[in-house]
Amino acid sequence: MSQNKTIMEVNKDLLMERAKCNFNIIEVTHIIDGGEENTKHRKKVESIALDGGASIDKIPEEYMSPNERYENAVRKSVLYAQIVKNNIADLNGLETFGGHSPVIRRTADAFFKEISPFLLHLGMFVPTLLGQCTPEQQAYWLPRALDMQIIGTYAQTELGHGTFIRGLETTATYDEKTEEFVLHSPTLTSYKWWAGGLGRTVNYCIVVAQLYTKGECHGTHPFIVQIRDEDTHMPLPGIKVGDIGPKMGFNTGDNGFLGFDHYRIPRDHMMMKNAQVLKDGTYVKEARHGKLTYGTMVFVRVILVNEVAFNLAKACTIATRYSAVRRQSKPKPEEPEPQILDYVTQQHKLFICIATAHALQIASNWLWSTFSSVVADMKRGNVDSLPELHALSSCLKAISTSESASLIEQCRQACGGHGYMMCSGLPFLYTFVTATRTYEGDYTILLLQTARFLVKAYEQAEAGNPVTPTVSYLTEAVSGKRKPWVGSPEGIIRAFQEVAAGNVATCVKSIRRRMKTGLSFEDAWEQTTIQLVAAAEAHCLAVISDTYRKEIARLTVKSSTNVKIVMEQLVSLYVHYWALQKTGDLLRYTSISQEDIINLQIKYEELLVLIRPNAVGLVDAFDLRDEVLHSALGSYDGQVYERLMSDALKNPMNKEPVSPAFHKYVKPMMKGKL
Amino acid sequence: MSQNKTIMEVNKDLLMERAKCNFNIIEVTHIIDGGEENTKHRKKVESIALDGGASIDKIPEEYMSPNERYENAVRKSVLYAQIVKNNIADLNGLETFGGHSPVIRRTADAFFKEISPFLLHLGMFVPTLLGQCTPEQQAYWLPRALDMQIIGTYAQTELGHGTFIRGLETTATYDEKTEEFVLHSPTLTSYKWWAGGLGRTVNYCIVVAQLYTKGECHGTHPFIVQIRDEDTHMPLPGIKVGDIGPKMGFNTGDNGFLGFDHYRIPRDHMMMKNAQVLKDGTYVKEARHGKLTYGTMVFVRVILVNEVAFNLAKACTIATRYSAVRRQSKPKPEEPEPQILDYVTQQHKLFICIATAHALQIASNWLWSTFSSVVADMKRGNVDSLPELHALSSCLKAISTSESASLIEQCRQACGGHGYMMCSGLPFLYTFVTATRTYEGDYTILLLQTARFLVKAYEQAEAGNPVTPTVSYLTEAVSGKRKPWVGSPEGIIRAFQEVAAGNVATCVKSIRRRMKTGLSFEDAWEQTTIQLVAAAEAHCLAVISDTYRKEIARLTVKSSTNVKIVMEQLVSLYVHYWALQKTGDLLRYTSISQEDIINLQIKYEELLVLIRPNAVGLVDAFDLRDEVLHSALGSYDGQVYERLMSDALKNPMNKEPVSPAFHKYVKPMMKGKL
Repeated sequence: MSQNKTIMEVNKDLLMERAKCNFNIIEVTHIIDGGEENTKHRKKVESIALDGGASIDKIPEEYMSPNERYENAVRKSVLYAQIVKNNIADLNGLETFGGHSPVIRRTADAFFKEISPFLLHLGMFVPTLLGQCTPEQQAYWLPRALDMQIIGTYAQTELGHGTFIRGLETTATYDEKTEEFVLHSPTLTSYKWWAGGLGRTVNYCIVVAQLYTKGECHGTHPFIVQIRDEDTHMPLPGIKVGDIGPKMGFNTGDNGFLGFDHYRIPRDHMMMKNAQVLKDGTYVKEARHGKLTYGTMVFVRVILVNEVAFNLAKACTIATRYSAVRRQSKPKPEEPEPQILDYVTQQHKLFICIATAHALQIASNWLWSTFSSVVADMKRGNVDSLPELHALSSCLKAISTSESASLIEQCRQACGGHGYMMCSGLPFLYTFVTATRTYEGDYTILLLQTARFLVKAYEQAEAGNPVTPTVSYLTEAVSGKRKPWVGSPEGIIRAFQEVAAGNVATCVKSIRRRMKTGLSFEDAWEQTTIQLVAAAEAHCLAVISDTYRKEIARLTVKSSTNVKIVMEQLVSLYVHYWALQKTGDLLRYTSISQEDIINLQIKYEELLVLIRPNAVGLVDAFDLRDEVLHSALGSYDGQVYERLMSDALKNPMNKEPVSPAFHKYVKPMMKGKL
Repeated sequence: MSQNKTIMEVNKDLLMERAKCNFNIIEVTHIIDGGEENTKHRKKVESIALDGGASIDKIPEEYMSPNERYENAVRKSVLYAQIVKNNIADLNGLETFGGHSPVIRRTADAFFKEISPFLLHLGMFVPTLLGQCTPEQQAYWLPRALDMQIIGTYAQTELGHGTFIRGLETTATYDEKTEEFVLHSPTLTSYKWWAGGLGRTVNYCIVVAQLYTKGECHGTHPFIVQIRDEDTHMPLPGIKVGDIGPKMGFNTGDNGFLGFDHYRIPRDHMMMKNAQVLKDGTYVKEARHGKLTYGTMVFVRVILVNEVAFNLAKACTIATRYSAVRRQSKPKPEEPEPQILDYVTQQHKLFICIATAHALQIASNWLWSTFSSVVADMKRGNVDSLPELHALSSCLKAISTSESASLIEQCRQACGGHGYMMCSGLPFLYTFVTATRTYEGDYTILLLQTARFLVKAYEQAEAGNPVTPTVSYLTEAVSGKRKPWVGSPEGIIRAFQEVAAGNVATCVKSIRRRMKTGLSFEDAWEQTTIQLVAAAEAHCLAVISDTYRKEIARLTVKSSTNVKIVMEQLVSLYVHYWALQKTGDLLRYTSISQEDIINLQIKYEELLVLIRPNAVGLVDAFDLRDEVLHSALGSYDGQVYERLMSDALKNPMNKEPVSPAFHKYVKPMMKGKL
């Protein structure tokens, strides 16, 4: 396996682990990348972007002041944008340039531990231009944006308003006399807040505002707004813009605030693909407006699921390699301290992370192909599959971001004290991924959207009507008959479906019970939301496990025997792990017995033993270059302690033997001279 | 209720909430503080330390460079040490000065969002002097340390060695010719690593090293070691010392590394209370050495449980007040956006945090009094209760730190995007508390220590022998008879005990099954560790719930009716919440029915409704001054948006309208001149 050059030789324990691995690693890498061609392409892109060493900071950015960090991030953003434009873009083609190029996004992670201040330019500004502009508007804006002549972001959320878009307060009032829109922030809570790059970097911005024409409000619409002079970068008159300040993560990105004081923009800066304001102020709306905006939303969710799976893969690579190198305790006095990877509790913490990284990667690919076929249907005028796609993308986004964050944190904790060091890379991964649980749709709210779909589908099934594929298990469930317990992965997944159905049925009963006491449906719904969230979680577990198992079977049809075996072991581990987490649900809603639970536990522990010798091979198969991992604990060579010390010695504070603070504060105190 | 002065008037929603509260808040404050006198004392100390405003940074420290943050923390440490010495120490008496003064520790939180570089001086150096020095040594060292003429820390963990103390590599070899110990770091992995304050602040250090005399190793012992010149602060010859670099939290504390090159210290710098090296190199050890070191360890754990409960109280104060102010969505078109505190899912996230803060605070006090009585027993030569105390303190430390961290994170996530801002205070609380899960005994390792005690106790009970109080439930359990289900808090707690007993029994069976296949006890134990951790968790839940319920009953005997009611509601909420989390265990190990589970859910949802009107009152009762909260979202006045914006405007970056990075990097790119 080609890895980047390392100065140090490989740690002996890692060499031993790699010798033990019994499957062909590169085959698994191809499966993860989605085929041998993709792997080759990825490696080529990585080689162009990273081999020169341009991605490596001389001083780790954590040693810089916030301002230095920002400037360093801008420096690297420009550098990286040039590399993409001059050396990589041709390899990918234009259509991937606008955001959905996992290879490019992943390679960028070598340049940015957190994010580039340009992230939302390519991630949101360009895609929104593609999705919301008329062809004429696109012809004007897109070349300038793609050539980085202008840099933009997307400003929707306000200081007082997030999820509930109808509650946004910023107004865009059409003035037919001048044929302009007047943008205005009527209150403090109406200030735009959060947009990445807005604080100091961008000069353009897509602003979502309440559109008023002829005294009438038409709801929220997007507008292209110039906020800074293209030449001097000074904020334009009527614009109040700045950085919102430090966050838990994302600190190389300048998230910003933005307020308008009766700020005017030309009429044709409204993004007019789906709705138009004519010169005289007449408002015209396309009929299918609502449905079409699903597109960008689902697209962003697919990317997020993909991204959190990738970050989880980083975390398990770091924690697994470290656990092979770290030795601790002496359960047997005559033997040396064992590798901590040999402890069953450590395997319990780590192997589920490897399996989940696979499961979510596969779920993301599957969601993408489902999305593509729904889009194709929509172009033929068929929008029947949209509600299911919406329910699916909602719960997959919620569960994958939440699970990844918890499991990354589990990896960090599994590395003990050293996992708490920033140079382990793990704290960055956690603070980065935990944010995805909140933005682009909060966990609870998204699951309640899925739950609404599930309750409707349940009622359909109850009425004897057909339901869509991902909830077909409800049809069997309404009969109320339980199937006998089968302990195979397939049987366990069927049980997860019974659990999901049982949870949905419980919710429906609760809602009906409450409505009988005189509550409206909405009030009864609200009071049932704790259980509704649980039902959506159960549904999502059933969907992910089922997809994971089926897709692995499909993807390994031509694999060598040992690859097949280890991939199946991970699928089996995944479903056993979750079955043991959900014994309450299984006992309530399936025919599982006490004895079956004991057998699940035994089988789970056997799987840990089987996977153990291949653990390092499995994380090597993610094929993550050291530059992408940013980790003293996780590098390919496993020289953990050397790297921890060499990182500490880069600390500028260690260059001066005595801190000025000693003479200024401490010494006077010690000498009693305060 | 006296609160610090605020410039702004109180938010209307908070005023409304406070008007709704139906119980006498100050009574609950007294319960939390441990009596009215304690509340008065706390307020007096807070007033002395905080009223002058010395604790408030002019620029939030997150805007500073790492070095500026350190210097600012030293500045405030010296300031605070002076306040304590000159104005507060007399109020507390000397014995509380050495660490266990919750009031002082909590007031210090106003000065330090994270930690003071002096923390380990008072928290570990001084207590170890008290615990490990002979009277003569104490007479020499203690006055200098208490007067801050020297500043010390405690260096035990090494780069390659943490939990397993016997594995430490640093050596202290006695040279009888010069009557000195020679300290040496033979390898990279033997470097001391992590000690707080070691990087740049301290000039003395307690070093734990392997003691060698006359060619023989006597295991690890503590030594007092000067590492820097008292006058110039330069590291002494033979000492290699520095800062280990940035961590996930604790970044105002200079955790350090330390290596020795044949560094010599006088013989009497070995801490000789429990073991001595005579002039000729003869090694003498006190008989009760092992047992006595429990003391400091349990003491530190009590403090930690107390501290995480306090930090959890901060997080729920912030999240609950914010949830009363924040409004979102419009489930009913005709009504305004509701306070998010009105959503059942939000109550589900927050109220368990309030109850847990109470439960852990009470568990900490109870552990402290148990500890005191065990110490009294020990002085009378009775060490029978030590194993139980050790098992208790282990699982309480593990569970309280882990639960608090998860619930603080739950509070943060419940505040949406704004919870991700550093100025919410919540990220600091999480990164601070999550560290406590690892240091002073990692979660998994501590629970396995408790499990060892549980398995032994189970075998005792099986043999018909008496067992100690906290595991007396095992005696009933070995009969195998299940009690009928009772849905009262008391009944649920008894069910938790049955669950704990059932889990321990399952472990014992697993171990025996494995031993029958020929495994040794230790190998069978290792293979059962996943279930053993679960058993210890179940035991700890039973202990905490039981203690919480009984202590609240005792502490509210004289309370007014509504205080009694709301405190009982929280106890009930706590046990219902956990019962619903543990349905699998309840179905496996108790006689609960499907119907009972449904009733638990209904009762739990009723409790949320009952607690809702008192939610803000309950967090007000924690009586946390704004200076201690450090939160734009959680201040007493609830002026959330004004504070978010005013914090953003403090950002020095917002003072310059155009970043130099624009001219240096961005403009050349935009103009195609790269």
